[in-house]
Amino acid sequence: MIHFECDYAEGALPHIMDLMMKTNMEQTSGYGVDPYCERARDLVREACGAPDAAVYFVVGGTQANKIMIQSVLKPYEGAIAATTGHINVHETGTIEAGGHKVLTIPTTDGKITADRIRKVAAPLPGDYHVVQAGCVYISNPTETGTLYSKKELEEIRKACDEYDLYLLVDGARMAYGMGSSKNDLTLNDYARLCDVFYIGATKCGALFGEGIVIPNKKIRKELPYHIKQNGALLAKGRLLGLQFIGLFDEEKLFFKVGDHAGRLADKLSGALRDMGFEFKYDSPTNQIFPIMTNELLDKLKGKYVWDENSGVDENRRCVRFCTSWATKEEDVDTLIDDLKALI
Amino acid sequence: MIHFECDYAEGALPHIMDLMMKTNMEQTSGYGVDPYCERARDLVREACGAPDAAVYFVVGGTQANKIMIQSVLKPYEGAIAATTGHINVHETGTIEAGGHKVLTIPTTDGKITADRIRKVAAPLPGDYHVVQAGCVYISNPTETGTLYSKKELEEIRKACDEYDLYLLVDGARMAYGMGSSKNDLTLNDYARLCDVFYIGATKCGALFGEGIVIPNKKIRKELPYHIKQNGALLAKGRLLGLQFIGLFDEEKLFFKVGDHAGRLADKLSGALRDMGFEFKYDSPTNQIFPIMTNELLDKLKGKYVWDENSGVDENRRCVRFCTSWATKEEDVDTLIDDLKALI
Amino acid sequence: MIHFECDYAEGALPHIMDLMMKTNMEQTSGYGVDPYCERARDLVREACGAPDAAVYFVVGGTQANKIMIQSVLKPYEGAIAATTGHINVHETGTIEAGGHKVLTIPTTDGKITADRIRKVAAPLPGDYHVVQAGCVYISNPTETGTLYSKKELEEIRKACDEYDLYLLVDGARMAYGMGSSKNDLTLNDYARLCDVFYIGATKCGALFGEGIVIPNKKIRKELPYHIKQNGALLAKGRLLGLQFIGLFDEEKLFFKVGDHAGRLADKLSGALRDMGFEFKYDSPTNQIFPIMTNELLDKLKGKYVWDENSGVDENRRCVRFCTSWATKEEDVDTLIDDLKALI
Amino acid sequence: MIHFECDYAEGALPHIMDLMMKTNMEQTSGYGVDPYCERARDLVREACGAPDAAVYFVVGGTQANKIMIQSVLKPYEGAIAATTGHINVHETGTIEAGGHKVLTIPTTDGKITADRIRKVAAPLPGDYHVVQAGCVYISNPTETGTLYSKKELEEIRKACDEYDLYLLVDGARMAYGMGSSKNDLTLNDYARLCDVFYIGATKCGALFGEGIVIPNKKIRKELPYHIKQNGALLAKGRLLGLQFIGLFDEEKLFFKVGDHAGRLADKLSGALRDMGFEFKYDSPTNQIFPIMTNELLDKLKGKYVWDENSGVDENRRCVRFCTSWATKEEDVDTLIDDLKALI
Repeated sequence: MIHFECDYAEGALPHIMDLMMKTNMEQTSGYGVDPYCERARDLVREACGAPDAAVYFVVGGTQANKIMIQSVLKPYEGAIAATTGHINVHETGTIEAGGHKVLTIPTTDGKITADRIRKVAAPLPGDYHVVQAGCVYISNPTETGTLYSKKELEEIRKACDEYDLYLLVDGARMAYGMGSSKNDLTLNDYARLCDVFYIGATKCGALFGEGIVIPNKKIRKELPYHIKQNGALLAKGRLLGLQFIGLFDEEKLFFKVGDHAGRLADKLSGALRDMGFEFKYDSPTNQIFPIMTNELLDKLKGKYVWDENSGVDENRRCVRFCTSWATKEEDVDTLIDDLKALI
Repeated sequence: MIHFECDYAEGALPHIMDLMMKTNMEQTSGYGVDPYCERARDLVREACGAPDAAVYFVVGGTQANKIMIQSVLKPYEGAIAATTGHINVHETGTIEAGGHKVLTIPTTDGKITADRIRKVAAPLPGDYHVVQAGCVYISNPTETGTLYSKKELEEIRKACDEYDLYLLVDGARMAYGMGSSKNDLTLNDYARLCDVFYIGATKCGALFGEGIVIPNKKIRKELPYHIKQNGALLAKGRLLGLQFIGLFDEEKLFFKVGDHAGRLADKLSGALRDMGFEFKYDSPTNQIFPIMTNELLDKLKGKYVWDENSGVDENRRCVRFCTSWATKEEDVDTLIDDLKALI
Repeated sequence: MIHFECDYAEGALPHIMDLMMKTNMEQTSGYGVDPYCERARDLVREACGAPDAAVYFVVGGTQANKIMIQSVLKPYEGAIAATTGHINVHETGTIEAGGHKVLTIPTTDGKITADRIRKVAAPLPGDYHVVQAGCVYISNPTETGTLYSKKELEEIRKACDEYDLYLLVDGARMAYGMGSSKNDLTLNDYARLCDVFYIGATKCGALFGEGIVIPNKKIRKELPYHIKQNGALLAKGRLLGLQFIGLFDEEKLFFKVGDHAGRLADKLSGALRDMGFEFKYDSPTNQIFPIMTNELLDKLKGKYVWDENSGVDENRRCVRFCTSWATKEEDVDTLIDDLKALI
Repeated sequence: MIHFECDYAEGALPHIMDLMMKTNMEQTSGYGVDPYCERARDLVREACGAPDAAVYFVVGGTQANKIMIQSVLKPYEGAIAATTGHINVHETGTIEAGGHKVLTIPTTDGKITADRIRKVAAPLPGDYHVVQAGCVYISNPTETGTLYSKKELEEIRKACDEYDLYLLVDGARMAYGMGSSKNDLTLNDYARLCDVFYIGATKCGALFGEGIVIPNKKIRKELPYHIKQNGALLAKGRLLGLQFIGLFDEEKLFFKVGDHAGRLADKLSGALRDMGFEFKYDSPTNQIFPIMTNELLDKLKGKYVWDENSGVDENRRCVRFCTSWATKEEDVDTLIDDLKALI
């Protein structure tokens, strides 16, 4: 079976596994107070061009999202997000469990715009009967593989400034965004435009880990308490440091991982397009969403694994194929060949 | 520097690292739905003699505690625990953040008794103005290294039955409890007496991971939703499966780890006792709490790391020394020799 | 100024004020344990034909909604409601503050259907990544004045049974629903079809108070703890008893209040319809939503108060006029005459 | 039966009932936006000598406490309070339901001291594993009838300033504190020393209502959102305005109520002391806590109602007798005569 259903089907980059093996029996203090985390934080700050930013590592994305949001919202404030946003649909209500409403903006491509943010935020202030907007949450790339441009992100920042909203970016797949041929955003841009964001490692070559970067000075001191309260403070914290050293040291694997997955995704989606497949979302990143007939998918079933997205009509479904740091070019080629033979 | 300050200063048992290396590039589904987790769950059930128990793996202990408690309590119920209980003092209020009061029982040795539980629980039912008791939380071994006997645990179970309370056991150091020369509890006993408990891996030889075991049928289906909502569902869930395979496969390292640490702790505490040191807590497990003079500790400072527990008087402090799966006998011997030379 | 903007602009029915004056210096126990509450609970049970139902009184509707919902949901469950539902838009996120997501169903008339409930509930069970549906919340009449029929409520009940959902009815304006010429529901029907519902007094003739009725035996014992925890247990609880005695004693004012407001609302909406006004919502109850020109509204401004609902186009707005137990027929006549003169 | 068990056994002062009757059929806007609330807020500000303070009215004390605490705490902060504090023992965990731990200070007289506050607060900052102190909650008079002096309150303020803690005062019985012969605090002092406090009306002559006063500018704008979210925004808000007009208008009943209850409490406790009774708490306010034999209490049972406090030994119990605005001097005299005859 060849797995294309997600970008977390394998373990970690050999370089990261090596770092873990080499340091395994060393003794360090726990909870992120160790030389490896120290170095990893420095590497992340350097990569972001944000020498003053605070950096914290947590194990997973749901934790990172909850912690960011709880750190910036008051109890009567909510987070503006796309209806398709991860916090709105795939975290079993973790934001609400923390007391906050998700103020949703309908979307067809997974993205929200500065104008829609204004429309949500404008009528709220001073109306005590309604949840107030406190922050904007976006993920980039989005859950549907689409990508915000620098201009779009700058406009969202502007809207946030107008309504005194924090801007949070879920970067679970940030490496794959940056590896896209359509990307014009740098880590420096994120550090310049966001109040807090995170750089995903779990899906981008590490065993686990998300690196929360906090350019906004006002909220820096809040995070560690939220991290511990949410059970996101890893006892053997250095493991998280090692993941990020592995991604951001001189090998710069973080960027190579993105390039690799982006190139293979382009190859696959290009071939599909050439074969006449339509796509539900116009994704320039590592997740692609072609529409295929039930008949074709039945034939692929024994050999490939993919992710179901949604039905289209009686005969067709939208499915998700992901590439990742670990995807082998030969597997993509095999898939393309098989498809060509089948249609 | 020789570290005795905790039992999570190193990485993981070589056997576990091996399992991770060997399977690193395999492709599996995420979130714990994979053959490794499947096997690990079977091994845990078998070790507990509880073929019907549900088993879930989460990354850390704070998560495990919150999830167990949220799964059994109603919004107006609290958890009975020792004042020194981990949930009461070292989790930044995670239980309260989940909406529940910790109903504390004062303790001098970290343990609570069936009779004290009855005293807390008896006057509450029907009084709408006060938090109702919903469960009893203990850790075994406790935070101060002490150990419940089978008789004590059975009595606590009886008190729980009388007042319709769930019994939860935090087994973050369960291996070290079972490796104690004073222990008379088996995993089967835990499975027989508890509604839900967890077997700690993080501190007992794994990189991370706590295995929640749920003998009580009524709450089995609740856990996975709480796990996801609390950000405790690891994307590459198989990693957790591998930790528990490493501890519970034919090598039975879980038990060897406990024996090793227990023997070295006994050796160290015996030597200290022979030298005339007093102990704040009478711990038969891997954490020992001798009282030492400031002068002596100053002399140890350059070479050893320990954990401060509390001041005793102007001249003396209680400190914690831990042994673990990774402690080298030669380091214990060196410490004993140095102490003998210094006093 | 003549107020038509809401149904809580005055104090209370003279009969209720009388009861309060007559008993003012009597001494009773607090917190609802008094003969007046006892009698009021009996009267409500009798009116509902539900001799076994538990009845609790709280001061306001937001409390009642939160308490009902918290009493039936598990932490990972949400409440299905219309997007326009009071809990979704006008309670500053009180449901989310209690930890629960509102699972919204789009609506144009304020109502939801059994089929839409099924569509929300069907795909959820067993998917640990998403909030589970735990209950259905409707208000009857709805926030837009529309009314569920007996058949519709029975169908919703059926959908709830299929997906194991509790059915909750917010009856803040129940008297006005029952006073509608289109109504075919009795209090007995509510008691038969709902797990828990409340009968509003605040808007229907009393100073304050909502009477929560709990036909479902499983949740009866839960409520009082939630009531106290949410600060909804009135110290001088007998005041709440007096409100409901005033509405449900031999005078049967609860029903007269509904008839009075219904008749005047019909008179007003009939006259408006005759004059050619359109309505945004087709409401058969005490709230009506005509569309008027800005010009006309400017002319009414000095003499009448109404509630703004929403803009329609450049020249027209939808406004809300309410009748209530306290509305004088002469005021309705004056408004009709003025409108006739102005158009 | 003569009731001495609490200070909320009757309705309200005739003056307040009059105000409600006179205004009953007037039409005003809801939710506290009306001329009566406006005037009441002015009267309270004037009484406190705090022309800039924000004032909000809510129905009950549990609401007021939760709202004050949620308005000042971050999610990882707790409220320092006496173990006997109302928020710690008699609100069914409402503070924890809001996410916050109560950091308790043991007490024998219901009061806490500046030094004990320091001991709790000092070791916390920067330790991410423990709940941080965010505010100090006291009630004055306390739950055991004792009273803080101006000097004690000033010292507590000083400790709060040292550790950056908000100071909150629960004044549910403030009128009775100010009516005590031992009192040296004025409303101006509260306004000068507290960040936020409330003036109780429910127990001091009104039907219901607590007036939250917020001298601290930083948190003024927060309150109304918390009030609505907690279901504490009364629809017919003017009723709350009328209660406070009744207490603070030219009649100055707020102060007369305190004097009356204080004088009668002194008379009763003086007589009891003369008869040789001991007291569990040395209360100079309207709640007194004599220790009586079971035998004597059996004889009083048919004629009087009191509140049980706690057992003392096999033969004796501590009971609570309260005076209030409504207590008749003849009832106190009768009780004294009966006691004299019985002992």
